[in-house]
Amino acid sequence: MNMVEIITHKKLGQALTQEEIDFFVKGAAEQTVPDYQLAALLMAIRLNGMTPEETTHLTLAMRDSGDVADLSAIPGVKVDKHSTGGVGDTTTLVLAPLVAACGVPVAKMSGRGLGHTGGTLDKLESIPGFNISLSEEAFVDQVRRIGVAVIGQTGSLAPADKTLYALRDVTATVDSLPLIASSIMSKKLASGADAIVLDVKTGSGAIMHTLEGSIELAKAMVDIGTLANKPVAAIVTGMAQPLGTHVGNALEVKDAIDVLSGRTKGDLLDVSLLLGSHMLVLAGAAASAEEGEQKLREALESGAGLRKLKEMIEAQGGDAQVCDDLSLLPQAAVVREVACGQTGWVAAMDTTALGLAAQAMGAGRIRKTDPLDYSVGFVLPVRIGDHVWPHTPFCTLYARSEAEADAAEQAIRAAVRISSDPVERPPLWYAIVTKDGAKMA
Amino acid sequence: MNMVEIITHKKLGQALTQEEIDFFVKGAAEQTVPDYQLAALLMAIRLNGMTPEETTHLTLAMRDSGDVADLSAIPGVKVDKHSTGGVGDTTTLVLAPLVAACGVPVAKMSGRGLGHTGGTLDKLESIPGFNISLSEEAFVDQVRRIGVAVIGQTGSLAPADKTLYALRDVTATVDSLPLIASSIMSKKLASGADAIVLDVKTGSGAIMHTLEGSIELAKAMVDIGTLANKPVAAIVTGMAQPLGTHVGNALEVKDAIDVLSGRTKGDLLDVSLLLGSHMLVLAGAAASAEEGEQKLREALESGAGLRKLKEMIEAQGGDAQVCDDLSLLPQAAVVREVACGQTGWVAAMDTTALGLAAQAMGAGRIRKTDPLDYSVGFVLPVRIGDHVWPHTPFCTLYARSEAEADAAEQAIRAAVRISSDPVERPPLWYAIVTKDGAKMA
Repeated sequence: MNMVEIITHKKLGQALTQEEIDFFVKGAAEQTVPDYQLAALLMAIRLNGMTPEETTHLTLAMRDSGDVADLSAIPGVKVDKHSTGGVGDTTTLVLAPLVAACGVPVAKMSGRGLGHTGGTLDKLESIPGFNISLSEEAFVDQVRRIGVAVIGQTGSLAPADKTLYALRDVTATVDSLPLIASSIMSKKLASGADAIVLDVKTGSGAIMHTLEGSIELAKAMVDIGTLANKPVAAIVTGMAQPLGTHVGNALEVKDAIDVLSGRTKGDLLDVSLLLGSHMLVLAGAAASAEEGEQKLREALESGAGLRKLKEMIEAQGGDAQVCDDLSLLPQAAVVREVACGQTGWVAAMDTTALGLAAQAMGAGRIRKTDPLDYSVGFVLPVRIGDHVWPHTPFCTLYARSEAEADAAEQAIRAAVRISSDPVERPPLWYAIVTKDGAKMA
Repeated sequence: MNMVEIITHKKLGQALTQEEIDFFVKGAAEQTVPDYQLAALLMAIRLNGMTPEETTHLTLAMRDSGDVADLSAIPGVKVDKHSTGGVGDTTTLVLAPLVAACGVPVAKMSGRGLGHTGGTLDKLESIPGFNISLSEEAFVDQVRRIGVAVIGQTGSLAPADKTLYALRDVTATVDSLPLIASSIMSKKLASGADAIVLDVKTGSGAIMHTLEGSIELAKAMVDIGTLANKPVAAIVTGMAQPLGTHVGNALEVKDAIDVLSGRTKGDLLDVSLLLGSHMLVLAGAAASAEEGEQKLREALESGAGLRKLKEMIEAQGGDAQVCDDLSLLPQAAVVREVACGQTGWVAAMDTTALGLAAQAMGAGRIRKTDPLDYSVGFVLPVRIGDHVWPHTPFCTLYARSEAEADAAEQAIRAAVRISSDPVERPPLWYAIVTKDGAKMA
């Protein structure tokens, strides 16, 4: 067996065998296959596709290319959650404590932000003292003790995916359904969860631009889970606007605390309840999503969710006081209130541009090694469909300097279109895909 | 402009602009674009194709990526000939002297053999003393003086093609019509000829497996020539069996001398006359291919062709005596006559396997740096359609050892199928493609 034969088979539109997939995945992990052969294969996969069986083999081979976390010491069904990447999307900080408060262990490995989307680890690190680097032993121990932990990757998870992902980024092969599905699922399966709830974003700023594409991606990942004996549910949610009103690391922590304190309602809470309810169902802690949502609402209203967040912050060395005194979070040098300045309806938002505006303020990275300013970002209380007057609050900027506030104000104004005609609110979610099929909203 | 954008356009099936093609060709020549991006682009081109305009831009950009030979000091229309690669195919050694003897200058840059096909330079170097490395000045001077020279490439011809060709070989992207056509034509245009006759092989061992594919390739190259203002004619010829009866370097020189001496007739002569007659037409030295063939036959029968070969050998430092005394060519240690051993009709040959058998004997290279044994190879007098008896001579082996003769005998027997039913002779050629269209045989 050699790479030219494998590339030839995929070039001719044939399905690759398990042996062929194992061969190139091993070569990618050990870097014994040259990048140019992997690149040619990736383009052939992008253009000729893969069968569900090939996609599953690829996922499992990438999972097995590195360490697989062992969470068996934690009793119960460990449920993980993954989002394909959003803006103002801090559901993990809301639902992890709520789900744990309902008695379902949440042992979550999260990532950092890159590009226009934020990352849970960066948000957590804006809490003074918070430590995201636990050993696998300490991680398992914390989940056994308090039911929840959110950390960075331990060990070397799916190194083959690391090689292929880096190549895809520079060879225009990111937008391949089997490659996206196998990349996400290999890492999720390697991080050891028993069941997985996926938040698949759809829309112009999302990895899949069309609803059909997003549903197909959701189905592909549910199929992989089924073939790998791990129950998976995928919710296709909209990216027409940021999910929460807060964008920026400490600002999103504040948003999550506001939601868990019951002070804030809205899309961030609703999507967190939707994803969380399916986590409870997969864990066997609720018979239906409706029952799951009811349990989560009880944990929210009793304050059990917020208490669980405090416990987690404390267990990971952070200052849990931030939950009661938000001024302990990093504060920006410049705070500026901006009014709408016009009359009409909020018609559309360029979510990617909003994410990039926060990045430019210092909340995100352009290169992996860029330092972050946890305090910066913005709060955008307006939602698509809202009617606004010139004096209606449009946004509050949290910036390092007046000049950066000016630039952000200009970028955010350009990213939000206000129309003279009424506009409907976009749906929060479009489809729920489980092994039993897709249920449309 | 950047490579990811360019790859994206081709991935989506769009035509690349002249600027985009110039960008990646420059990057390939100067090796500033990483191989993995070129590999992804090559696979996208292989799967999504190129328009005739893109293929021509690519050809001209690759031509201009290095030196372009200047043959303007040679009076008259310089006509070049190129073959896509055959076995026992030594037409250059037959037609270059014949065409030159008809007064048309032949300034030819040839290549070395690789894989199962032989190369003109290797054959010429089997003549004691023959020098294929002339400066461009000496090359032009020799053609002015005696009308013919065959040398290796001078300068750095089409370095972008060199990079892309090497990558195609290891990324399963050899079999792309626009990539094949542009690769051949960029080198031919860079070597400075005014007009080009192409021998496009067809069949299982050829670069294009089907007749349709071969005719399409011929048309693509004729189109490029037309768009680049260089008349091109392409003859699609068969590769059902080796063209000449001799396979191996010194053996093929002997075959060419036998043909030019009038001692040997057959397919090698007929294809040489066919290609040569179109060279005379493109050079304006004949009004029709029929008239061209007549002139070449006269040069053959008068001995002018053989005299021209002697002149060329002498001018390039070789021992021209070989033309009168074939025993001055390298002689193999082991010579073995093999009889057919069965009764029937020669039904089919695996030409690639025959080329590889000669390679294994030492006549060809597996790696570019392998040394050759000029003396080895075989003579295979049987042709498809011939009736044979057990005592009919099957082949003569010229080997370095009895063991290698054994291996070659076995390989050659396996490559020639003898049937109990009569078989028709395959046609010598299938189509002649010029700017006026394709004429089928």
